Amino acid sequence: MESVTQKTSLQELVSREHKKDDTIVSIGNIPLGGPFFTIIAGPCAVESQEQLQSIASSVKMSGAAILRGGAYKPRTSPYSFQGLGHEGLKILKAISTSLGIPTVTEVVDTADLDLVLNYADAVQIGARNMQNFALLKAVGKISKPVILKRGMAARAEDLLLSAEYIFAGGNSQIILCERGIRTFETQTRNTLDLNIIPFLKERSHLPVIVDPSHGTGIRSYVAPLARAAAACGADGIMVEVHCDPQQALSDGPQSLYPAQFAELASSLQQISHIMGKDMVGNLSSSQIFL
Amino acid sequence: MESVTQKTSLQELVSREHKKDDTIVSIGNIPLGGPFFTIIAGPCAVESQEQLQSIASSVKMSGAAILRGGAYKPRTSPYSFQGLGHEGLKILKAISTSLGIPTVTEVVDTADLDLVLNYADAVQIGARNMQNFALLKAVGKISKPVILKRGMAARAEDLLLSAEYIFAGGNSQIILCERGIRTFETQTRNTLDLNIIPFLKERSHLPVIVDPSHGTGIRSYVAPLARAAAACGADGIMVEVHCDPQQALSDGPQSLYPAQFAELASSLQQISHIMGKDMVGNLSSSQIFL
Amino acid sequence: MESVTQKTSLQELVSREHKKDDTIVSIGNIPLGGPFFTIIAGPCAVESQEQLQSIASSVKMSGAAILRGGAYKPRTSPYSFQGLGHEGLKILKAISTSLGIPTVTEVVDTADLDLVLNYADAVQIGARNMQNFALLKAVGKISKPVILKRGMAARAEDLLLSAEYIFAGGNSQIILCERGIRTFETQTRNTLDLNIIPFLKERSHLPVIVDPSHGTGIRSYVAPLARAAAACGADGIMVEVHCDPQQALSDGPQSLYPAQFAELASSLQQISHIMGKDMVGNLSSSQIFL
Amino acid sequence: MESVTQKTSLQELVSREHKKDDTIVSIGNIPLGGPFFTIIAGPCAVESQEQLQSIASSVKMSGAAILRGGAYKPRTSPYSFQGLGHEGLKILKAISTSLGIPTVTEVVDTADLDLVLNYADAVQIGARNMQNFALLKAVGKISKPVILKRGMAARAEDLLLSAEYIFAGGNSQIILCERGIRTFETQTRNTLDLNIIPFLKERSHLPVIVDPSHGTGIRSYVAPLARAAAACGADGIMVEVHCDPQQALSDGPQSLYPAQFAELASSLQQISHIMGKDMVGNLSSSQIFL
Repeated sequence: MESVTQKTSLQELVSREHKKDDTIVSIGNIPLGGPFFTIIAGPCAVESQEQLQSIASSVKMSGAAILRGGAYKPRTSPYSFQGLGHEGLKILKAISTSLGIPTVTEVVDTADLDLVLNYADAVQIGARNMQNFALLKAVGKISKPVILKRGMAARAEDLLLSAEYIFAGGNSQIILCERGIRTFETQTRNTLDLNIIPFLKERSHLPVIVDPSHGTGIRSYVAPLARAAAACGADGIMVEVHCDPQQALSDGPQSLYPAQFAELASSLQQISHIMGKDMVGNLSSSQIFL
Repeated sequence: MESVTQKTSLQELVSREHKKDDTIVSIGNIPLGGPFFTIIAGPCAVESQEQLQSIASSVKMSGAAILRGGAYKPRTSPYSFQGLGHEGLKILKAISTSLGIPTVTEVVDTADLDLVLNYADAVQIGARNMQNFALLKAVGKISKPVILKRGMAARAEDLLLSAEYIFAGGNSQIILCERGIRTFETQTRNTLDLNIIPFLKERSHLPVIVDPSHGTGIRSYVAPLARAAAACGADGIMVEVHCDPQQALSDGPQSLYPAQFAELASSLQQISHIMGKDMVGNLSSSQIFL
Repeated sequence: MESVTQKTSLQELVSREHKKDDTIVSIGNIPLGGPFFTIIAGPCAVESQEQLQSIASSVKMSGAAILRGGAYKPRTSPYSFQGLGHEGLKILKAISTSLGIPTVTEVVDTADLDLVLNYADAVQIGARNMQNFALLKAVGKISKPVILKRGMAARAEDLLLSAEYIFAGGNSQIILCERGIRTFETQTRNTLDLNIIPFLKERSHLPVIVDPSHGTGIRSYVAPLARAAAACGADGIMVEVHCDPQQALSDGPQSLYPAQFAELASSLQQISHIMGKDMVGNLSSSQIFL
Repeated sequence: MESVTQKTSLQELVSREHKKDDTIVSIGNIPLGGPFFTIIAGPCAVESQEQLQSIASSVKMSGAAILRGGAYKPRTSPYSFQGLGHEGLKILKAISTSLGIPTVTEVVDTADLDLVLNYADAVQIGARNMQNFALLKAVGKISKPVILKRGMAARAEDLLLSAEYIFAGGNSQIILCERGIRTFETQTRNTLDLNIIPFLKERSHLPVIVDPSHGTGIRSYVAPLARAAAACGADGIMVEVHCDPQQALSDGPQSLYPAQFAELASSLQQISHIMGKDMVGNLSSSQIFL
């Protein structure tokens, strides 16, 4: 049964009926939700210590509060780069410690979960696994935050029901993430669906972030859509940055250059301010051009 | 043939290759495009002199620069209200003159075009007629601006090719309008696709506006998505406002109350400013809360 | 308003509630609906007297009962072949008379309707004009049959409501035609949606045909999907045939060769028989391999 | 990366370039693919020994060659029936042995795989797990057949690449299954996409079956679409049957009554015959009305 037609009912733990006030989830010491606007940035995949070090230090300086980087990469083709696995996790942890920035990375199988939890501050459930219910049940039992990405064909209600699996399992530290749906439009890799933001904010108390990198798949569209997400009420964005996108092992065409990211972070701070939110992070006052 | 896979070629009149600088289109004395951010507001349908008078004076005072109102309404069912027709056009013209605000209204058939042009400052081609090529050819020969709405199943490239029909006919005063596409998502009436904004701004010199009312179909989502449109680089929005949405003959559930519109216009002015644009219109300084 | 959520109500003229028995519509002397299975075939566009003569005589001999051919072609780009217009209508009529086969051709504007009616036995409303309500109202007043094609983003209910426009205008000779919808799938030009066939047959008394040529856009998929349509309960198919598809001015890649059409017609006769229908036409017994 | 734009390349193990002749996969002693047309039938979920016994004996007598029944049910809501788990597997095995019919059941997590293999003759990867790459890799190492269902947002090419994961892992016993995609159409639960059948048969040597139960979600549409699948070139169907659909714990509205199934099986035998295939199974001659 893939769709449930009735509205989110009163009993649902993720609903505003269950909890009226915004939930604030902390990844490491960084808050998401409520009065905060939070930027998660980093490469699509962890490729090497040097690669992650240079990207992480750059995005941290420019306004990112949390570092992303994939060690297990779900790829459409079995012949594409599948991630560094355990080695990638170690690199992620090392950079996190040296720079003092918390991290999130994707988990793709229940069998890997314990290992991933040893290295990351939060786990991500990717779009392809949004209805991998065994995995949802497993992360429902952990004590670290979960970023749950919307599936490519998931209705807004389906996303909330997948979050409900996690919450019902005992883990209330859930961050919802819009990352684009599949439509007939071929100009963009996906169709980032910002309409879901006011829906999720009305219906649920959980923080909501947006991934404009996967959402559009095109570098020059990332910043406009990230700003749109902030103006629309999102609690943060997750964005891919790479120092040398041409050489990236995964998703180069949608990765921002560090300078583009810095400029984006500045404008997001201004828009967050209009929306009544404070941007979390290290943005120095000299970068603010408001 | 409904799709053309090759990219917009150099010869296309609507492309940036053909004309590098932004085109600024004027409806009456109001500019759209380039450094301007312009708000078009009004009821879905013209219902009576009193209805239009009260909405128009309210939205003009709050920041709308152009008045919208339908006299010919394309409706899915033959048994729904079809608009006041010629009588609606007369009302639109009377209010336009008395308030000094230019107008746009939809034309649905080549046979009505001359009549509509006697009363309105610009014509709108609706989503259902985006590929009514006979109508596109007809408005290609007029000397007033055309707002061309994206069809519910139109790819970004298709919208540009429909604009090309108008331009090739001799009329370069074209404003492109995103208004939501049909996807699997049922939570919203349509899926407003803001990803098309950076695409259109990159590929074409024509002004681009967004209709968040049809795009979402839900009153409480209209303002967030309108702000998102502005943050994303749109040149303006077209939004439905009604003093008594419960009694509206068409599209009440997506119409803003005048007070909601005023608040939205204020925040749009702030976001436009961040985006380097000046909002056109009558917004008094007392309404600005930045 | 593009969607009407309530079910087809009792009052609707196109519904089974209004009329329980199958409606049989005749184009010329050829019936569609009820116990009949009818094949409409011909080129996408009328290109010349010679082209149409050779295709028409071939398809008539192989089992086609009605000839199709476009004189007014709706094309995504203004620079594509737009059809021969009036000249194409004259050719269509001449071939129809000489071969004794009735014809259907598309009408794209209310202004052309009278002219088209002078030459063709039935008119087609194309997918792009399914919600061109001015045109629907106009064909509601004529006394010849109308083939109404489903729009690329039209829900099943929307198609019935567009048919209702025609019926409510006074013309009950309507044939519904599925021709593919727009989905995320890019392998085929459209996604032929056969699920609509049992829906339409349950809910409406009107004949339902399928166009697998536009529905798939790929020659080698046309016959499998045409057979599927017959097995699914359709009352006929409309299919594009061309003697020299490589040189076709429109839609060559989806046109069958005459020999492929003949083989398809034979298998359709067998499947129709299993479905309790008799295929209308000239299929000689030697072609039947059952 | 969710889409790979290049065509299936020569190196792909699932492609016709790699292996020209049809692959025939055997579940127990029952073949799928090549000259055979095979019916898999049974309840959505195993509910009890009595339920499965009565359905299984009925469908076997009417023409089903393989029994389906879910023990682990992926459900959108955590509060829906999740299946009997291990207990369900035991029931499935018991009925299989007593009736002499092979079985297929879904596996939803790598952790359950060994257990499932102890009880079933083939495993199914459901639509929600089509891109659960950890699971695909795991079933790539088993020695029993895998039925791989198309994801709700999977392009045809994506399905082949998921199959490639299994094949590349060492398991070539793969059956592809179309089960409907997500589109804007709300009349049916999914949009069964038969256009993929000729694509898959052209591009791959693997058997292809169709699930019209999930594909439409509506009982009265199941038989028409099942017949369409057969007429389109599918190698078999998988269909849900329940003796008391009103009381079914899952998917009752789309389950056929046993008598409907028997009638469908008869007509499928006729259509298979036209398509040059022999239906596998126990269909007694008295049931054949050809």
